[in-house]
Amino acid sequence: MKNPTDMVNAFIPGAVALSPQEDRMIARRRALMGPAYRLFYERPLQFDRGEGVWLYTPSGEAYLDAYNNVTSLGHCHPHVVGAITRQAARLATNTRYLHDSVLTYAEKLLATFPPELGHLMYTCTGSDANDLAVRIAQAHTGGTGIIVTETAYHGVTQAVAAFSPSLGANINLGAHVRTVPAPDSYRSPTGNVGAEFVMAVQGAIDDLRHHGVTPSILICDSLFSSDGVLSEQPGFLQGAVDAIHRAGGLYIADEVQPGFARTGQAMWGFQRHGVLPDIVTLGKPMGNGFPVAGVVVRPEVIEKFGRTARYFNTYGGNAVAAEAAMAVLEVIETEGLQENAKAVGAYLRAGVEDLATRHPAIGDVRGAGLFLGVEIVSDRAEKTADSQKASRIVNGLRDERVLISACGAQANILKIRPPLIFTGQNADFLIDALDRVLTAAG
Amino acid sequence: MKNPTDMVNAFIPGAVALSPQEDRMIARRRALMGPAYRLFYERPLQFDRGEGVWLYTPSGEAYLDAYNNVTSLGHCHPHVVGAITRQAARLATNTRYLHDSVLTYAEKLLATFPPELGHLMYTCTGSDANDLAVRIAQAHTGGTGIIVTETAYHGVTQAVAAFSPSLGANINLGAHVRTVPAPDSYRSPTGNVGAEFVMAVQGAIDDLRHHGVTPSILICDSLFSSDGVLSEQPGFLQGAVDAIHRAGGLYIADEVQPGFARTGQAMWGFQRHGVLPDIVTLGKPMGNGFPVAGVVVRPEVIEKFGRTARYFNTYGGNAVAAEAAMAVLEVIETEGLQENAKAVGAYLRAGVEDLATRHPAIGDVRGAGLFLGVEIVSDRAEKTADSQKASRIVNGLRDERVLISACGAQANILKIRPPLIFTGQNADFLIDALDRVLTAAG
Repeated sequence: MKNPTDMVNAFIPGAVALSPQEDRMIARRRALMGPAYRLFYERPLQFDRGEGVWLYTPSGEAYLDAYNNVTSLGHCHPHVVGAITRQAARLATNTRYLHDSVLTYAEKLLATFPPELGHLMYTCTGSDANDLAVRIAQAHTGGTGIIVTETAYHGVTQAVAAFSPSLGANINLGAHVRTVPAPDSYRSPTGNVGAEFVMAVQGAIDDLRHHGVTPSILICDSLFSSDGVLSEQPGFLQGAVDAIHRAGGLYIADEVQPGFARTGQAMWGFQRHGVLPDIVTLGKPMGNGFPVAGVVVRPEVIEKFGRTARYFNTYGGNAVAAEAAMAVLEVIETEGLQENAKAVGAYLRAGVEDLATRHPAIGDVRGAGLFLGVEIVSDRAEKTADSQKASRIVNGLRDERVLISACGAQANILKIRPPLIFTGQNADFLIDALDRVLTAAG
Repeated sequence: MKNPTDMVNAFIPGAVALSPQEDRMIARRRALMGPAYRLFYERPLQFDRGEGVWLYTPSGEAYLDAYNNVTSLGHCHPHVVGAITRQAARLATNTRYLHDSVLTYAEKLLATFPPELGHLMYTCTGSDANDLAVRIAQAHTGGTGIIVTETAYHGVTQAVAAFSPSLGANINLGAHVRTVPAPDSYRSPTGNVGAEFVMAVQGAIDDLRHHGVTPSILICDSLFSSDGVLSEQPGFLQGAVDAIHRAGGLYIADEVQPGFARTGQAMWGFQRHGVLPDIVTLGKPMGNGFPVAGVVVRPEVIEKFGRTARYFNTYGGNAVAAEAAMAVLEVIETEGLQENAKAVGAYLRAGVEDLATRHPAIGDVRGAGLFLGVEIVSDRAEKTADSQKASRIVNGLRDERVLISACGAQANILKIRPPLIFTGQNADFLIDALDRVLTAAG
């Protein structure tokens, strides 16, 4: 990346010539919304309409969305839109009045978790969820120390940005935060990522203590989405979870990315690893575009927080959010989306692996279900990250009307994360475009 | 309040006998959502439907909502529901693609502000907005010190809860936070609340510096809603704003409560005081129930943050939120709600002032537009706060099917905050009920 505030796949003003109409709209946006916003792509995109896996520009050009995990049932899913429409016209309350929907949804959602995870608390965004989770964990453990991976992203509130190193070197991490290398099977020195990860987490625990900070949490997205989609081998998390528990801390599973059936193997990412979290945080796909998120927590972990504090979130747990979220769970079930993520995810992965036999730029293909990470390298033997080529591929796919992005500390890993309704035909469309773009990218 | 975690007007389990059906629902809620949630009222209420100023229980009993400032256009306003329905079926994007709605809304909203306040940033909740505002202010000033009033509420993220003393004594305020007495015209020792407030703020500035903390912000809700609806006399904020500016800090106007025409006198609460904030935060009424909030900021104040950080909020600034918010602005304009808040607010206030001539429990009536604070006292001469009587009145009104709450450090101030569509007839309904309840409360 050019400088520490740059975002992977960010638009850089002036880098590429745009049309006068595009320039005008971007200038208008800068004037109205200020300097802190970023757009995707060398040539930003404007969309006007979405349906299923497709996004449409104002002039009607269709783009295949293989990136958005908010609308993971596809854009504007009619069952969810119907639920929002019905409930918005009926009542949007808050949790200081009784309402059946928030309870019915909580029952339905909690039934997808191990029985130890007994409570659901409603928030509005994944950031809110992680912020609340940390407050609960710090109340329970009496400690403040937080351990995250080196390129993790967990959210944007002040407390959560302090342990989201992927936001860039200019965002100060807290003095109570330690980062550890992500468990990377592709570049593992020993081949045993689980053992390496335990050692790193234990080192962070020791270092926190050495500085007088009591360890409180280890928080991971079990697919390590920002670190580079690190999926292999399932099970490697157990040792690290045991280590934080031995230190008196809690394990928080951030399911904003891997949750809601995306991995195809389970409803929740932590289940791929066979671990039992103390707190689980939920976000983006929970409402398929409607703002709703949550925290699932073991009752004994929330006990102290509930005794000393109270929690209210105006929109968290309003009836419209609960109905939208309910509709999402229903669609995952009735449309068999976990199975689809597994089957189409495997098909897509096989297709990309086949490309790897012909395109030496592909160093590794990994992932789970409909979430793939594809390493772009300039030298397979040396595994040399090639972020410039990755950027050419992401922007080349954009010109082929396929939306993906990149991730990882070197920004060289293609991040492919289509809606769970992706079909084999959609996968073929993506693979064919990627084939052409890889050829052109050299 | 019984203990520091108690909330004003909170349901206390076991205090009053409920029906078996109510007990079951509350137990189910406790089992599913855990111990940190609170319900309103000695006997909690369940609602199933809302329309205009009315909320309906499942059995169809109508309650007059004189408390909810989220749905400030009335429950389920058809213009807003229509906008949500249309846009949810068309596209819910994020701000990393271009979309016209977020720009058009920003233009329309910023036109209601003084021209110095040039940028709008989108968040999801008022808490997010205050959290972002603090990050921006701390980046700009290089300081961390925060000054708030003693019973202020600004939100629920970890960073914002640290300067929301109304959450209770068990929530630690940050070491960088100082509280000052709210500017209370009713109990003012000198009669000059402006001068008292300046002195308190200057004292807090000096104390922060004495402890090595650089002052960063003074943040106020200009109606001091949680401190007790402290509205008098308009203008008293100027000196305190000047003081924080002289100290190199910023003034943040939290408009979650007084904003969007509620005061009747202006679109924004800070305008009542003739001050110019550096940052303005927006929340609840912005989407009339749809989760949307924001930060309005002077360009020179966001410059450093924009250079060193970036901001992305998945749902903040999605097209559905922007369309819902746009519909809200349109309704405020087309239905003349600022004028209505002024006219009906004055009528309601006159009615309560008339009650005060017959009910000695009313020590003071104040407020602006459709936001009244009514002091309940046991002794008018001594101005002795009577929180028990206030609680009897709030619960008595509930039995009369009128919803209000209480506020203030002593929980003795009735907080009356009806939708902006309130009519004279609605005001009569409230006044008549309050008359009966005051008589019964003795």
